[in-house]
Amino acid sequence: MKSFEFINPLENSKPRNTGLTMALDKGMGILYAEDLMKMSGEYIDFMKFGWGTIAVHEREIIQEKIEMYKKFDIDAYPGGTLFELAYRNNKLNEYFEEAKDLGFNVLEISNGSTDIPIDTRLTLIAEAKDNGFKVISEVGKKDPKLDQSISLDERIDLILKDLEAGSDKVIVEARESGKNIGIFDSNGEAKDTDVQKLIESIPVNDIIWEAPQKNQQVYFILKIGSDVNLGNIAPDETTSLETLRRGLRGDTIGKV
Amino acid sequence: MKSFEFINPLENSKPRNTGLTMALDKGMGILYAEDLMKMSGEYIDFMKFGWGTIAVHEREIIQEKIEMYKKFDIDAYPGGTLFELAYRNNKLNEYFEEAKDLGFNVLEISNGSTDIPIDTRLTLIAEAKDNGFKVISEVGKKDPKLDQSISLDERIDLILKDLEAGSDKVIVEARESGKNIGIFDSNGEAKDTDVQKLIESIPVNDIIWEAPQKNQQVYFILKIGSDVNLGNIAPDETTSLETLRRGLRGDTIGKV
Amino acid sequence: MKSFEFINPLENSKPRNTGLTMALDKGMGILYAEDLMKMSGEYIDFMKFGWGTIAVHEREIIQEKIEMYKKFDIDAYPGGTLFELAYRNNKLNEYFEEAKDLGFNVLEISNGSTDIPIDTRLTLIAEAKDNGFKVISEVGKKDPKLDQSISLDERIDLILKDLEAGSDKVIVEARESGKNIGIFDSNGEAKDTDVQKLIESIPVNDIIWEAPQKNQQVYFILKIGSDVNLGNIAPDETTSLETLRRGLRGDTIGKV
Repeated sequence: MKSFEFINPLENSKPRNTGLTMALDKGMGILYAEDLMKMSGEYIDFMKFGWGTIAVHEREIIQEKIEMYKKFDIDAYPGGTLFELAYRNNKLNEYFEEAKDLGFNVLEISNGSTDIPIDTRLTLIAEAKDNGFKVISEVGKKDPKLDQSISLDERIDLILKDLEAGSDKVIVEARESGKNIGIFDSNGEAKDTDVQKLIESIPVNDIIWEAPQKNQQVYFILKIGSDVNLGNIAPDETTSLETLRRGLRGDTIGKV
Repeated sequence: MKSFEFINPLENSKPRNTGLTMALDKGMGILYAEDLMKMSGEYIDFMKFGWGTIAVHEREIIQEKIEMYKKFDIDAYPGGTLFELAYRNNKLNEYFEEAKDLGFNVLEISNGSTDIPIDTRLTLIAEAKDNGFKVISEVGKKDPKLDQSISLDERIDLILKDLEAGSDKVIVEARESGKNIGIFDSNGEAKDTDVQKLIESIPVNDIIWEAPQKNQQVYFILKIGSDVNLGNIAPDETTSLETLRRGLRGDTIGKV
Repeated sequence: MKSFEFINPLENSKPRNTGLTMALDKGMGILYAEDLMKMSGEYIDFMKFGWGTIAVHEREIIQEKIEMYKKFDIDAYPGGTLFELAYRNNKLNEYFEEAKDLGFNVLEISNGSTDIPIDTRLTLIAEAKDNGFKVISEVGKKDPKLDQSISLDERIDLILKDLEAGSDKVIVEARESGKNIGIFDSNGEAKDTDVQKLIESIPVNDIIWEAPQKNQQVYFILKIGSDVNLGNIAPDETTSLETLRRGLRGDTIGKV
């Protein structure tokens, strides 16, 4: 039973297919992460091990961490950059195998730092699915200049193709900073007309919006609703995000 | 015994009525919080569970956390937003009761996100006192536009009325960000003439200044003194704040 | 064995004399710190207890923390501000003795907040060495205005003199913020011509660059190489820094 239950608006409990939260683990200690999950683990669906972080950590620790997250019904998965490094090194079979051995059941397919022809990308999405993984793909470039060269129509087209190829969800890239990238300007403000067009063109439940900053989370909740899928949330901000979703913080109180 | 005791200026130890520090818990794990309190718990007087955060946490966990903080002589209390939600839902009796059941002995009365007539506010402060709680009230609006519509004279008047109605301390609102709100401009710089007028009009020991940013903490310590009451401090910045108070950091060395 | 070992570029393992990382402990709990060190302790060489923080902590806790870091082959040391406070209070003998008693084997000699004549500074570096400490000295002033009054030539001269007097490494000051100080402008961007001149005048392995922000870390890695010595890294960013050094994050992938 929650505290102050009588003011607590309806909860969206697991398993759920909307209102998903993906948090970003960039190398937390396991005890710390577990301790935090006892507070807000029920509000997190995916835990992304950011970019190539886990390649500098011991296998045993990563396995233990994946197991720990599973106890809270959270699917951990390696950042897309690690997939890209395997692609660049021609080690994709080893990649799928190692991911399975470690206990991952979700993979991210991206080309944020690497040129991957669109057809190859779509084949790889299908291949990851064939290997038994859930696939989250990410659209966008990590380099702001390259990212800006993708037109909105192109971005929409890429997302739709990914979904058709089998992606379970598609992430709209915003990095850890959320500034000057994708749908965010250099101040981290969302470009509303771009977002509007995206949600008119794509089933909104299929998108995970990276929204690392609080004002971005507020924007999406007020624009799309409490059950919007959000990603790249700092783990220690996941309680805050849940309060935003439920109108328990000044920014959304009385508005959701 | 502290390390390097021979350079350590005089300590302001508990119980104390000035130099108070209120820190902001926005959903920390308990082990982590306890571990941190072993370092700097003696420098913290109040721990605010930010806005409505605890309404998404289990009762047992909140009770355990309140107890843990008590071991360090820290009074935990729920954010004013939770009180406002109870007010909006017409559940104030339940609110007082649940707060008592959970083990709180301090409450925050605010109207940062809700219209509450001034007379009602003052009655509620008295009512909370009658229910056996220490009361910290907060003056200011969470929405910057609404907040700017409160004149300085009005702000002073509200603070004085709260104190008269029984508030033990009054908080000057600055949110978690400390920007573009209350006495802070959009860069988070304090408006010195406003602060000057506030401290000429109100007993300074009765005020807790929310000062989440380091430059704001430095400002108040140099302006008012080491024994100024400060709030909304990030828990992992409480050691830093104590060093600022005692002239153990470059910003205040030789000046306090 | 690391996870995804087949994509993991060569590691620079301890003991090492280049590619050093100095992280900044500003009062972490011990369990938390140890838990984090299990993830990235092998990538940290020095842990600086920031400014005078440890003077507000119990001796027993500091001793325990120093020991804990030693288990991970990390040398903890007190911030230079504490040394300056001892100097101001005419307690340098007590300072060296207490540092030894607590278990420190590295000291920082600085004058960031205090006027210390250059000859005295050089004598004190030698004295600390004679007392059996490794010495890391820091060049720069904490106050931006004072810091800007040091010309680049003067800065180079000070660094060379420190090294001659026995400093094992010299830190280029950037504080915790990394803005408007030393080689960084008010946006935290490195002044490239200054850095260029510094690395042409001083053996680069002898310098530790304070680079608290990610873009600063990326700058130095791309400018000088993965084995550049970097300091004032937030402990929870040390995994990220290691991925930057090894080309496992978008910013440096394919470039190191």
